[in-house]
Amino acid sequence: MTGRPTLAVVGATGGVGAVMLQILSQHADVWGDIKLLASPRTAGTKLSVRGVETEVEALTEEALRGVDVAVFLVPDDVAARWAPLAAAGGTVVVDGSGAFRGDPEVPLVVPEVNAHAARTRPRSIVASPGCTTLSLIVAVGALHAEFGLRELVVSSYEAVSAEGQEGVDALRRQTALVANTKLGTHPGDVRRAVGEATGPFPAPLALNVVPWSGALREDGWSSEEMGIRAETRKILGLADLPVTATCVRVPVVTAHSASVHARFEQEITVERAHETLATAPGVVLFDNPAAGDFPTPADVVGTDPTWVGRVRRTLDDPRGLELFVCGDNLRKGAALNSAQIAEAIAAELSA
Amino acid sequence: MTGRPTLAVVGATGGVGAVMLQILSQHADVWGDIKLLASPRTAGTKLSVRGVETEVEALTEEALRGVDVAVFLVPDDVAARWAPLAAAGGTVVVDGSGAFRGDPEVPLVVPEVNAHAARTRPRSIVASPGCTTLSLIVAVGALHAEFGLRELVVSSYEAVSAEGQEGVDALRRQTALVANTKLGTHPGDVRRAVGEATGPFPAPLALNVVPWSGALREDGWSSEEMGIRAETRKILGLADLPVTATCVRVPVVTAHSASVHARFEQEITVERAHETLATAPGVVLFDNPAAGDFPTPADVVGTDPTWVGRVRRTLDDPRGLELFVCGDNLRKGAALNSAQIAEAIAAELSA
Repeated sequence: MTGRPTLAVVGATGGVGAVMLQILSQHADVWGDIKLLASPRTAGTKLSVRGVETEVEALTEEALRGVDVAVFLVPDDVAARWAPLAAAGGTVVVDGSGAFRGDPEVPLVVPEVNAHAARTRPRSIVASPGCTTLSLIVAVGALHAEFGLRELVVSSYEAVSAEGQEGVDALRRQTALVANTKLGTHPGDVRRAVGEATGPFPAPLALNVVPWSGALREDGWSSEEMGIRAETRKILGLADLPVTATCVRVPVVTAHSASVHARFEQEITVERAHETLATAPGVVLFDNPAAGDFPTPADVVGTDPTWVGRVRRTLDDPRGLELFVCGDNLRKGAALNSAQIAEAIAAELSA
Repeated sequence: MTGRPTLAVVGATGGVGAVMLQILSQHADVWGDIKLLASPRTAGTKLSVRGVETEVEALTEEALRGVDVAVFLVPDDVAARWAPLAAAGGTVVVDGSGAFRGDPEVPLVVPEVNAHAARTRPRSIVASPGCTTLSLIVAVGALHAEFGLRELVVSSYEAVSAEGQEGVDALRRQTALVANTKLGTHPGDVRRAVGEATGPFPAPLALNVVPWSGALREDGWSSEEMGIRAETRKILGLADLPVTATCVRVPVVTAHSASVHARFEQEITVERAHETLATAPGVVLFDNPAAGDFPTPADVVGTDPTWVGRVRRTLDDPRGLELFVCGDNLRKGAALNSAQIAEAIAAELSA
């Protein structure tokens, strides 16, 4: 390769694609050409990136020719089909979908935690984790590096934009349907008000929480819960780490939160955890309940870091820690992490 | 005492008081006279109980004379002052406030779990637990009786009506303020829309979740989190049980939920947990994710039982179990539990 690498954003017209174009316009520019690719249906659309109107092309093998790095922000099935084709043509693929996260020949990378892993990519594919894992792994990874993680128990509070525009539209419609009423006090009244407008969710979300996200797996687990376990183990390189997660959808537009109970090899104090988190890259420590400082989705949406608050030492275990973490599921939870991986690869290719 | 006992409902004009009057009208009638007491400010109000219009009297020592059982549904400071006065006059007090829950001479009772404890009451006071403990303790108590509880990790999803009418009004006002807009995608937009209308909460709740409930205690813990630990230990008679809780407020009007990670002395299977829960009094097992069956606040509001779903065996621990529980914080979480205790005492006094 001579000069700066060429980047393709595959899935440029989707919700995460839009955030990616914002990020590319904001970050230090390491790219030569940037190609925007999408399904033939949306090809021809013009989108702005780095201040330049750019026409979206249909995703074809021809369009991928000469692309050094392609970031895939598309559904699993599209990635499963097209990422290997791109890789075969000499492109390094950064895949934001779930298609390759479990593949032992595909590294799963969070640059603040395991940047080195992106350098070994037998299939020329690097995967980015799911948004719920990404909401907690930067903070948990920093604590692991210092104290040695031994166990993780996670309960999530997941925003609707993880289900795309359809999820956002459903919550907005439902919120309008339940607003200005006395709903929420009698059995069935929220269901009646929301009617068929549940969107991609298995129950109403306005004035409700729904203990389900993802697809059904064995023994009552959801794919999202299994994903948090498998991804955390792979990113931290702890193949046998006990991880248990319960995933719950909440009526929040964007920004995932999680309540995290972590047990470490070493004894831990709030003071030492604060020190570690305050200096960890990609983390903002926001933890002073006396002043009302703890992260909430409404405050962190649109920002890059993982916000951490409510840090407490487990009362019955000097090795245990409780945290509440919050992060934008479209930024660090999707587009930003993929952009960071792609930029690291660009630096490697340009070196 | 001759004939049926006289009951006083103290705090009859409040939100939980209203639910108590409903319950008294629905349950088998074990009472002689029912007196309704409240602050002098609301005395004179007429409320219906057992189909009879009853005038609310001011809470005075005179009004408590001849009362066999008084259920207190009032703030901690009112209960702290008046419950001992009532007890000194010969009344058995069932206190729904937090004033006496930690008192070693006051039993803390959930009839499905430790009914026997209500019979020993050195101060003539019996306390009812807080609403978050009550959202999970009936299910957890049934599992403990069978498998021997060894550890509990709880993350809550708490409804606003636990903060009274002020909490409900705040969420309704906020929901109206954010409805029909594109809010929730940019930092600060929910805060701007909600403005000063946060009500009793430290941050906006519409389109948000807030990792705080209760008052600040030592080392960053909230009173609600400490309460779950102390109350669970006392009710189950497990003084050293490791319990850790993170309490989070969600934009739900009524019905608390909790994600529960429990570790037992014995190995456990989902099948055996299901058997135990399906036959436990006060529990409804609603657990078939393939059919979309899991409890949500919107579905359980207004009902008496604790609903349990998402039952899974912890993948890395044959002694561990994950649950999602849901219950009405005004019924079992407040008025119903107090009514059940009072009715058990009525039976004892009448025997």
